[in-house]
Amino acid sequence: MASPVTPPRGMRDFLPRDKARREHALGIIRAVYSDFGFDEIETPVVEDYARLHSGLGGDNEKLAFNVLKRGLTPEDAVSAAESGSLDSLADLGLRFDLTVPLARFYATHRAELPPVFRAVQIAPVWRAERPQKGRYRQFMQCDIDIIGEAGPLAEIELISATSAALTALGLIGCRVRINDRRLLTGMLDAFGFVPAEHPGVLITVDKLDKIGTAGVLAELRERNVTAEAVNRLEEFFARPTPDDQLFGEAQIRSQLPAGVDDTVIAELATIGTAVTQADSTPLVFDPFLVRGMGYYTGPIFEIEHPELGYSLGGGGRYDGMIGRFLGQNVPATGFSIGFERIVDLLELAEDAGTDSLVLVYEQDVAPATLVALKSELIAAGKRVRLEKRVKNLKALLDRVTAEGFSAFAFVTPATASAADLELKPLG
Amino acid sequence: MASPVTPPRGMRDFLPRDKARREHALGIIRAVYSDFGFDEIETPVVEDYARLHSGLGGDNEKLAFNVLKRGLTPEDAVSAAESGSLDSLADLGLRFDLTVPLARFYATHRAELPPVFRAVQIAPVWRAERPQKGRYRQFMQCDIDIIGEAGPLAEIELISATSAALTALGLIGCRVRINDRRLLTGMLDAFGFVPAEHPGVLITVDKLDKIGTAGVLAELRERNVTAEAVNRLEEFFARPTPDDQLFGEAQIRSQLPAGVDDTVIAELATIGTAVTQADSTPLVFDPFLVRGMGYYTGPIFEIEHPELGYSLGGGGRYDGMIGRFLGQNVPATGFSIGFERIVDLLELAEDAGTDSLVLVYEQDVAPATLVALKSELIAAGKRVRLEKRVKNLKALLDRVTAEGFSAFAFVTPATASAADLELKPLG
Repeated sequence: MASPVTPPRGMRDFLPRDKARREHALGIIRAVYSDFGFDEIETPVVEDYARLHSGLGGDNEKLAFNVLKRGLTPEDAVSAAESGSLDSLADLGLRFDLTVPLARFYATHRAELPPVFRAVQIAPVWRAERPQKGRYRQFMQCDIDIIGEAGPLAEIELISATSAALTALGLIGCRVRINDRRLLTGMLDAFGFVPAEHPGVLITVDKLDKIGTAGVLAELRERNVTAEAVNRLEEFFARPTPDDQLFGEAQIRSQLPAGVDDTVIAELATIGTAVTQADSTPLVFDPFLVRGMGYYTGPIFEIEHPELGYSLGGGGRYDGMIGRFLGQNVPATGFSIGFERIVDLLELAEDAGTDSLVLVYEQDVAPATLVALKSELIAAGKRVRLEKRVKNLKALLDRVTAEGFSAFAFVTPATASAADLELKPLG
Repeated sequence: MASPVTPPRGMRDFLPRDKARREHALGIIRAVYSDFGFDEIETPVVEDYARLHSGLGGDNEKLAFNVLKRGLTPEDAVSAAESGSLDSLADLGLRFDLTVPLARFYATHRAELPPVFRAVQIAPVWRAERPQKGRYRQFMQCDIDIIGEAGPLAEIELISATSAALTALGLIGCRVRINDRRLLTGMLDAFGFVPAEHPGVLITVDKLDKIGTAGVLAELRERNVTAEAVNRLEEFFARPTPDDQLFGEAQIRSQLPAGVDDTVIAELATIGTAVTQADSTPLVFDPFLVRGMGYYTGPIFEIEHPELGYSLGGGGRYDGMIGRFLGQNVPATGFSIGFERIVDLLELAEDAGTDSLVLVYEQDVAPATLVALKSELIAAGKRVRLEKRVKNLKALLDRVTAEGFSAFAFVTPATASAADLELKPLG
């Protein structure tokens, strides 16, 4: 065939070694979240079109892959064209996140779930983004969410479980930055930005890591927001930053302008104190952490690594969303780790184990002998691969070494049982 | 909300206990296939529309969920309507099996794969079937395939690995029925059915388990196929069936009409002898095993359980398919276990382990204390769930017992460390 045969645009195949790395990492994450009392659930990869496009997904809704209704007629296409939107041709869509499905799942099964439900979802999502380096149209999300707990205990459990997962994966040097959406609002109020300016100001402040304080101030002045407020922000940027990262209320207050809500500060202090006591991953209060999504209503957090220019995950409280399909207000908070980014950083053991071996057999060995040998070795705890002996033996041995096998043995017509095998190390 | 909120039609959510059962079973299957030298791969859930609809999928192609192109205009819909087919509106589709993706994967990555490639695929597929009991529109398939091995060693490895997986799952009493498509053809020739009659005759013979020999003969006579051939089949049905299931060539020949190809019989004998030597799951030669799909070219097999009226999996050699996108002939044979049916039969350990416990905490315990306790217990190897003490303590304890926890302890403001906890058994 002339044209190359490839996976669909922006999507990836996983060859054996990649797949093994991914499953290994997922196994570690699953085990930690289970230890922390979270329960894994699964939903179908598609949801009803109307539900996916109900406004919970923000900009991601535009990136949904939509599924054509079955049994459509030409008349359906014509009437869709006349309506100006082809949406009526779709009845399902691939999920673009795990939050809309979780809200739908919670509405479906609430009666069967505990009052405080700690959910794990480890599953792929799809977004029709313009393909670019490090962005895929199908990628894994690993989310934990606590539904039904309004207090800071939920955030504490989420952060300590996530932190334990990162540690178990061997990812050293991460920090968790934390802030609260209500503090951000309080801070902007204190500087003197009027409420209508808040969303735009937050978009600019969110770029602080990339464009620095000077960049943020310049962009705000270009935006023509309240000039005096920008001046106050400039003064605030120049304040001395504290050396320690203790989470007493006084320390948090010292990093905020006057006039910010005391109860929110107390809650953040509770989270910070509890997490730093229990955990090895440092927690850092960052009054300028924004997190893009507009649906956050309380504490927000993000995993960073000093050597990486991107976040490794994040989350926050989003009390308005989970109850939407239920028509009730249900408190909820979640933490998602960036699995695709993390799995690339891991140095996982890549061999198939010390107990893996290759039986290099000669053409004239009976299949029954081969399979009996193989079964005998597997029963003794080995992983076993059969390979026919070829002229270029070195190439064969190099290949199976690269595939992670640790030993090999020749099988000849004289081999009667595993006791006759002479195992030689590979690699 | 008035209308019930449900997953999409024909699809299922998995609640924590179901999900845990499924993951547990998948873990067992993965481990066995890995021991047997198979390598897991993964492909995207969608494939290009044209590839999905290239004829490899048989009737399943009609059941594909197709994905609407992004950025369609009303003009696109009108021209699709004019063309009489709405297919031009779709550029992708959800895979309906794992074989088309495997053929595509093999064409993409052949240079990176070993000459004999033993693949595992454990992944969902989608079919827009009319929903009915036991049929789902999203379901898991667990396939192993050996690509690049033309000889019977491939079948032997597939059958022994599958048989070991069934045993490891604790599924007792299964049998594997085996036949060969070439024997079926040879047998129909020997009876005197003309080649043009074969496909129809096989469809009828495939119903033998359901309608019996009398039913098959009646249906064939209704079909007006060569009358003499049906008479010979009737005589053949009345032959004495052998008591033993030995796989010598003579025994196989004794169950076939005269004139069937010796080399095929010898190959089947090789498979049968090797498998029955190595394995605990009985292998049974069934000269009337058909397997529906038309793409099989050699040995075919099916897992049956005497107490169940349906098969638990099956497979066979399909040499023409895998090389299709490569434009070459590549030998291939595969075995698929019916995961959805099997997982329902399993009696898996359903508790969260003996080391799981619930901390029932009073309202006024500090979150920092709770999380420190939890971390201490997790570090000691426990699975830990926090639950706020409620008035109806019995209901709470009953629920967490049902969720699989094995012990609980109260946490009060006086609790300083795990040493202060008084663990009580649950259930």
